[in-house]
Amino acid sequence: MVSIVLIGAGNVATQLYKAFSKANGIVVKQWYGRHLDSIASYRNEVAVTDDISQLVTADVYIISVSDDAISTVSEQLPFNDRLVVHTSGSVGIHDLNMKNRRGVFYPLQTFNKASEMSFVDVPICIEALQKEDEDLLKSLANTLGSKSYKLNTTQRRVLHLAAVYVNNFTNQLYRVAHEITESEGVDFEILKPLILETASKIQHMSPYMAQTGPAKRNDKKTIKKHLKMLENEHHKAIYELMTSSIQKTHGR
Amino acid sequence: MVSIVLIGAGNVATQLYKAFSKANGIVVKQWYGRHLDSIASYRNEVAVTDDISQLVTADVYIISVSDDAISTVSEQLPFNDRLVVHTSGSVGIHDLNMKNRRGVFYPLQTFNKASEMSFVDVPICIEALQKEDEDLLKSLANTLGSKSYKLNTTQRRVLHLAAVYVNNFTNQLYRVAHEITESEGVDFEILKPLILETASKIQHMSPYMAQTGPAKRNDKKTIKKHLKMLENEHHKAIYELMTSSIQKTHGR
Repeated sequence: MVSIVLIGAGNVATQLYKAFSKANGIVVKQWYGRHLDSIASYRNEVAVTDDISQLVTADVYIISVSDDAISTVSEQLPFNDRLVVHTSGSVGIHDLNMKNRRGVFYPLQTFNKASEMSFVDVPICIEALQKEDEDLLKSLANTLGSKSYKLNTTQRRVLHLAAVYVNNFTNQLYRVAHEITESEGVDFEILKPLILETASKIQHMSPYMAQTGPAKRNDKKTIKKHLKMLENEHHKAIYELMTSSIQKTHGR
Repeated sequence: MVSIVLIGAGNVATQLYKAFSKANGIVVKQWYGRHLDSIASYRNEVAVTDDISQLVTADVYIISVSDDAISTVSEQLPFNDRLVVHTSGSVGIHDLNMKNRRGVFYPLQTFNKASEMSFVDVPICIEALQKEDEDLLKSLANTLGSKSYKLNTTQRRVLHLAAVYVNNFTNQLYRVAHEITESEGVDFEILKPLILETASKIQHMSPYMAQTGPAKRNDKKTIKKHLKMLENEHHKAIYELMTSSIQKTHGR
């Protein structure tokens, strides 16, 4: 049985709590939140506290707070030589205070507090300074049903950066498409199956191989027509940059 | 029973043939291809021809050839006053020769010849100059299990343009993320669940509501860190433009 103390009350912490509390072989011994009211509704299931000096003994302490606060919180922990991990994509392992054994347990997904999510589809990136800690974090991920990947701090930061492209920037392309269709009274609904198919396609094919369309074909006539149709300068700038990016990739 | 003559041998024509030949209430009476060898393998199931003067009588003629050839092919048809439709997103209904009744039957998806696809997830955009032709095209779409949408030529062109954003440009963001992860030896595989979740999320939420991340939060520190990490000028330009696009949308 692996015992955990959870530190933090945000989306990731809440999703981790829900997953851990259902998993076999894991017990959440205590949940710390700076403001007790954010986790008070769980007090019948788990010991909650807002007093960091009262943390109980556990195998792993998971700090799931905002990036800026990780270092300070790790410093405030009232003990030494225990395993303390954070859950951030962009914070280094050495930003954790060195009085404890350090590690990272970074689940890569978009989380929101409300909807419960399955960790089966959440890859967990693991880093630790000692082999036995790494093994423990790996088994923790396995218990949740997650695939785990060993990444160092640089790799995790690069992954976090790449995630901005496939998540935030992709979503903004959806938004631009929404604006474009709406401008002519076209139902954005029509694009939804294509959006899903585009994401599904690269699950078993590289993005390079999956590419199609006017930029890839170097179909200058269609590209010119499209640019003429675009009245919004911002939409046009995205069209031009992404087209030139595709042409660069495909040697046009 | 609706009878069809299919004109063209590309991906869309082939997918349409496969779907029509399995659907109840539809019969493909003939399939025309400029080069017989591309459709010769179907000659045991359907009458094939490469002689446009030999087209048989049918309720609908579906021209599924390259955009540039649609007008010419429609002109070469050896009959008048029949229903002739094309399957292109960017060609106007009036580009079809006016000696026949004209229409459009535009399936919005990414097609490839090899894998058979279900039309249940393919919205079909319909246009016709006469009400009864429109009804026939609508029932044709229904028979395939597709949702149909009535769009005029301008709307269809705008949809086709928006599709470039959610399909080609989104796929290029996946490609850039692939390049970024590979540069540090990070497995692109880790991003795949996030890619799928990003596309799934907007099936029931607007892209505006679905947005998250440093640009939306106006988290200048993270944005600055990311830009510093990006060595490739092209990747950097995309980061800057998409970040400013998100900030514009969300009033930052």
